[in-house]
Amino acid sequence: MISLAGGLPDPALFPTIELSVIAQRILAERGREVLQYGETAGSPILRERFAAALPGVVADDVIITTGSQQGLDLIARTILDDGDMVVVGDPEYLGALQVFRTHGAHLQSVPVDADGLDVDHLEYQLVGGLRPKACYIVANFHNPTGASMSRARRLQLAALADRYGFLVIEDDPYRDIFFDAAPVSPECENPNRYVRLRSVSKTLSPGLRVGAMAVPRWLLEPVVIAKQSCDLHTSTVSQAIAADAMAASWYPPHLAEIRSVYRTKRDVLIRALEIEFAGRLSFSTPAGGMFLWVDLDAGDTMALLPKALEQGMCFVPGEAFGLPTHRSSWARLSFATASAEDLVEGVGRLAAATK
Amino acid sequence: MISLAGGLPDPALFPTIELSVIAQRILAERGREVLQYGETAGSPILRERFAAALPGVVADDVIITTGSQQGLDLIARTILDDGDMVVVGDPEYLGALQVFRTHGAHLQSVPVDADGLDVDHLEYQLVGGLRPKACYIVANFHNPTGASMSRARRLQLAALADRYGFLVIEDDPYRDIFFDAAPVSPECENPNRYVRLRSVSKTLSPGLRVGAMAVPRWLLEPVVIAKQSCDLHTSTVSQAIAADAMAASWYPPHLAEIRSVYRTKRDVLIRALEIEFAGRLSFSTPAGGMFLWVDLDAGDTMALLPKALEQGMCFVPGEAFGLPTHRSSWARLSFATASAEDLVEGVGRLAAATK
Repeated sequence: MISLAGGLPDPALFPTIELSVIAQRILAERGREVLQYGETAGSPILRERFAAALPGVVADDVIITTGSQQGLDLIARTILDDGDMVVVGDPEYLGALQVFRTHGAHLQSVPVDADGLDVDHLEYQLVGGLRPKACYIVANFHNPTGASMSRARRLQLAALADRYGFLVIEDDPYRDIFFDAAPVSPECENPNRYVRLRSVSKTLSPGLRVGAMAVPRWLLEPVVIAKQSCDLHTSTVSQAIAADAMAASWYPPHLAEIRSVYRTKRDVLIRALEIEFAGRLSFSTPAGGMFLWVDLDAGDTMALLPKALEQGMCFVPGEAFGLPTHRSSWARLSFATASAEDLVEGVGRLAAATK
Repeated sequence: MISLAGGLPDPALFPTIELSVIAQRILAERGREVLQYGETAGSPILRERFAAALPGVVADDVIITTGSQQGLDLIARTILDDGDMVVVGDPEYLGALQVFRTHGAHLQSVPVDADGLDVDHLEYQLVGGLRPKACYIVANFHNPTGASMSRARRLQLAALADRYGFLVIEDDPYRDIFFDAAPVSPECENPNRYVRLRSVSKTLSPGLRVGAMAVPRWLLEPVVIAKQSCDLHTSTVSQAIAADAMAASWYPPHLAEIRSVYRTKRDVLIRALEIEFAGRLSFSTPAGGMFLWVDLDAGDTMALLPKALEQGMCFVPGEAFGLPTHRSSWARLSFATASAEDLVEGVGRLAAATK
């Protein structure tokens, strides 16, 4: 089975030897500290490391989380009351939708197009009376569409958050996997209105479960109290490994290698689709991340999936990211996990399934 | 400052070198698997390891948690609706009270005496109409009292859980730290009525954040769904380290050493108290765990704390574990963290503070 379905990083890119050396050293040299209970907000040095990559943010604003998923859960748990409105993209990352629903939110979707969340559409709804508690965005290399928000839309969203008083929850797991220029955040984003979620899951290892959230000052204490109730703190062993890795001399070239490998695999996937489907599908080329979002003229991708499985490949049908809109002809193809050879073979099998 | 306050394990007992060797090996040899996303319910081998220590439980009944604290949060999140009643001990572990309150529970306390939770008292309330959703117990070496539930009370509680249809949440972090006989669970406990929380925090390392919960079959799916929403899964690196450690040949002698060291420190603390306070305090000798619960005839321990801090020592006043009862003359002294010398010196300072 060749899977283009999952959102798993390519395990061949895990720095196994480097992390094995780090883990050995920190436990042998600082084991009495690293194996003990830690601070709920996270290890000071790791908070520093994440803060350094966030303009205008200091270590005190950062809380280390057990992956970005916990960041989502903590913020939802802290700010949402039953029936509160949360704006999400259509389509959107299912894990986020589930968290917001779990905490009683009513979801209001706004279309995501090639420039990311359609902020004009959101503004129209706000003018019409919509009063969300929060707006969830994956502004860089969105899952599943691969789209990035244009600068104009980011500025417009920041202004709307101020005017209508909602929180922007910016989930940013793919940020470091850019294929052209590095993403930038508009300088005018009001730090009192933004929660930023970061992670090493896509660049270092998802298994470590190390993420971070930068929160407005007024949310710091309630989020830390919620975190304490959830798991006291994130694994100090995972935190120490991540902190050492992020400061290692091999880390920047490691990131460059991930970008280069994923970019090549994106191109391989696109070329294979062009050859096999010649005009029978459409997509936008993502400038980073892990996913290609394709419109298969073939029709219903949910009905196509069993045929693809028979051919020995799988993908995620568009409806899985579904909110109200009819996405039945769309599919998410991941170019991250599979090898280049498997991407080509997988597309061949997908094409066979459509015949 | 000599602290007899915290519930931290003695860091001198952490198997730092052994864990450093394990971490190095698993990342070098199985890094591509261990650093990847893992199953939400936990690694199969670690679920096996925890199940093996739980009579009548198979690996499929076990969910690996990010410490026992997450087990508490997951079960509270899964079963509690606003206003549901949860029975807890008086006094009781504060972290548990906070979790239940966070999830909207109304707490009903039942006294804890030298034989643990007073189940006659609970039965009286049940007969009187009390209908709790759950009853929380630390049956072995309770925090803060050090008391263990007698076999008769355990059997009585199991029968009441069946008759009145509530869940027993048995939090068991100190189980392996016994000074005489190993604790046993009565064979008649109905697996459909018991949630058992286990942890390696007190025996291996709290920093790893590895715990486990054995749940009734009917709770398995909702708890796994809640876990996925919370953090996808527990650190696979921490899980792999714990799984290897629990099967290592050095682990049983390591547990024996912890028991021996803590038992000696318990005796040192008791002897120091007898010498310094000669009849001016009372306590029951705990048969395991980390805590001595003492009644200082001196009076208000909350008022005593600032004086103790002035003398250079600290403890936790009884009121911190407080529910309604007046515990003002009580204090919890931990014999786990401090060295034997510091225990003696700390008691000397405590005595000075009472003068």
